[in-house]
Amino acid sequence: MNVNDTAASHPPRIALAVGCPAGIAPELTARMLADSAVTSAAQIVTVGDRRVIARGAEVAGVSLDLRYITPDAPLPENSARPVFIDLGNLDPATISVGNLSEAAGRSALANFKHALALGLRGEADAVAFSPFNKASMRLVHPGYEDEIVFVTEMLGFKGIASEFNILPDLWNARVTSHVPISAVASLITFDNVLRGLRLTDQAMREGGYQAPRIAVAGLNPHAGDGGNFGREEIDVIGPVVAAGQAEGIICHGPLPPDTVFVRARKGEFDAVLTMYHDQGQVAMKLIGFDQGVTMLGGFPFPLLTAAHGSAYDIAGEGIADPGALRAALLLAAEMGARRRASLQSRWNSW
Amino acid sequence: MNVNDTAASHPPRIALAVGCPAGIAPELTARMLADSAVTSAAQIVTVGDRRVIARGAEVAGVSLDLRYITPDAPLPENSARPVFIDLGNLDPATISVGNLSEAAGRSALANFKHALALGLRGEADAVAFSPFNKASMRLVHPGYEDEIVFVTEMLGFKGIASEFNILPDLWNARVTSHVPISAVASLITFDNVLRGLRLTDQAMREGGYQAPRIAVAGLNPHAGDGGNFGREEIDVIGPVVAAGQAEGIICHGPLPPDTVFVRARKGEFDAVLTMYHDQGQVAMKLIGFDQGVTMLGGFPFPLLTAAHGSAYDIAGEGIADPGALRAALLLAAEMGARRRASLQSRWNSW
Repeated sequence: MNVNDTAASHPPRIALAVGCPAGIAPELTARMLADSAVTSAAQIVTVGDRRVIARGAEVAGVSLDLRYITPDAPLPENSARPVFIDLGNLDPATISVGNLSEAAGRSALANFKHALALGLRGEADAVAFSPFNKASMRLVHPGYEDEIVFVTEMLGFKGIASEFNILPDLWNARVTSHVPISAVASLITFDNVLRGLRLTDQAMREGGYQAPRIAVAGLNPHAGDGGNFGREEIDVIGPVVAAGQAEGIICHGPLPPDTVFVRARKGEFDAVLTMYHDQGQVAMKLIGFDQGVTMLGGFPFPLLTAAHGSAYDIAGEGIADPGALRAALLLAAEMGARRRASLQSRWNSW
Repeated sequence: MNVNDTAASHPPRIALAVGCPAGIAPELTARMLADSAVTSAAQIVTVGDRRVIARGAEVAGVSLDLRYITPDAPLPENSARPVFIDLGNLDPATISVGNLSEAAGRSALANFKHALALGLRGEADAVAFSPFNKASMRLVHPGYEDEIVFVTEMLGFKGIASEFNILPDLWNARVTSHVPISAVASLITFDNVLRGLRLTDQAMREGGYQAPRIAVAGLNPHAGDGGNFGREEIDVIGPVVAAGQAEGIICHGPLPPDTVFVRARKGEFDAVLTMYHDQGQVAMKLIGFDQGVTMLGGFPFPLLTAAHGSAYDIAGEGIADPGALRAALLLAAEMGARRRASLQSRWNSW
């Protein structure tokens, strides 16, 4: 069996969970299912409530031709129409658009769990979701922290996952994330930084970069100014860059944090690996990350969504920009296709 | 005596040190002295070598009409022409434009010292300089760290000075600067943050803002997320904002660091007080700070320069953009005029 033929003949399958029904998720999801660029790049299997997506289509002003199935029905091998798994878990008449409710959070969580199960069983090559609202999910499970923690627990995942922020020509991954600034420096270890660097390189190759150019930011002002303002660049980050280069990763650094994004924006790098949350987030949000893609990397399957939130303030008006979710699904298709080809190649080699 | 009349009848005097003669400083300085908006806003007293400014005028393609005086001559009370104190300390034929040299560094330091002395003696209402090159200055004094440290030592200054980065509608000051990330959190104390807030408010009022709106950034991701990722927002920064408001400072926060500059750029705030170097520098450099102004605040007199450096790569070509230095001098004139009026008012009240 020729892997390339296989990958081409069967488009990747993306399990797409409908996000918060009180936000812009229904209308954005409906737009995706009416977007031929998206539906031709992958077989989209949406998970949600049929009545919610119908309402979303109405708001978006699109007409949908979907193949509805029940939650326990087998997935069709090939379907010309997008597949919709109707969980029948939320009557949109029972919630108020733009307002928090337990019912909204409960349905979003159920959709997400079902989509994750499809990924876990290998029935989907990638998983995606339209915007959640964490506050509504916390009305159901007060301990709901974020998607990475939730997925890690759902999958019983033992590895380390990491959030990527992705603009059309610029990826950003980080070594530490939701930790206090006082704890950051102690987490900048050789193993942590190297793991972040490898994960970035691998995820970008899966995302279609043949030779991603990765800038590695320093930790300290002026990248430590030769040890004057901190030694992590000399003791940790420099050696990681050398180790990465020895493995064939195209990486540069440690670079001064306050100019690395200016250089990346000019096209000098494809990605920046940052050492802490705001080192990257301050930059990405200024560059326009609200139109970007969030990818949770490191899990057994690609997991993608739009970078923006559920936008309760404009929900139901039909004006929400679908660009970020569209980019997320096209990247999910790209990554899913490569993953499928890679798995088949490994399977067939024995 | 009416203070307003006084301020109006005597324009503020700015001592302007010519920066590195091997960089773009001579041509930019020459452009300033030929710029009627600058020379009408203040009496500019330039400090340097007559031959260097002549070379700069040639490169810039401007003709200058200056009143040259010797270093020990008294400053003219009123001069229709810009005054130039000729230190006679550098023959431009002895250095190579675009290259480091001890002679270049030595002359820049001498110009700076002379201008600072004018500020210290109250003969100038503000001090400014065209771009230095720290590397050439370190050829003379290897211990030359930065302008703040140098000025603090030259003046025997006992207070705490702080760098401000200024774009046309956005100021940025920081509580900590050239310290390792590992040391930042321990420096976020009530006194340090409040001092930074007061200094920002005071400097902006001197710079012409009647009621500056100051955003105070949090320290941690998501401003600590209610204490989940650090408590400095709750224990320190929040109380400082309350104390500032009680003093009449218009301040808001602590705000999530990764969106505060997006909001400021939209016009919601006039300034952002950041907790550490890169929290502000990452943002300001992306927004375009290379065209901005650097102000060293807290000293007895305003001290300003362009945010960019000496640009050896384009020196002598006449193409360097004078916009940032022009903005620095106009702001120096504004701040110098207010300072002069304030001193006179205090003097006359006894």
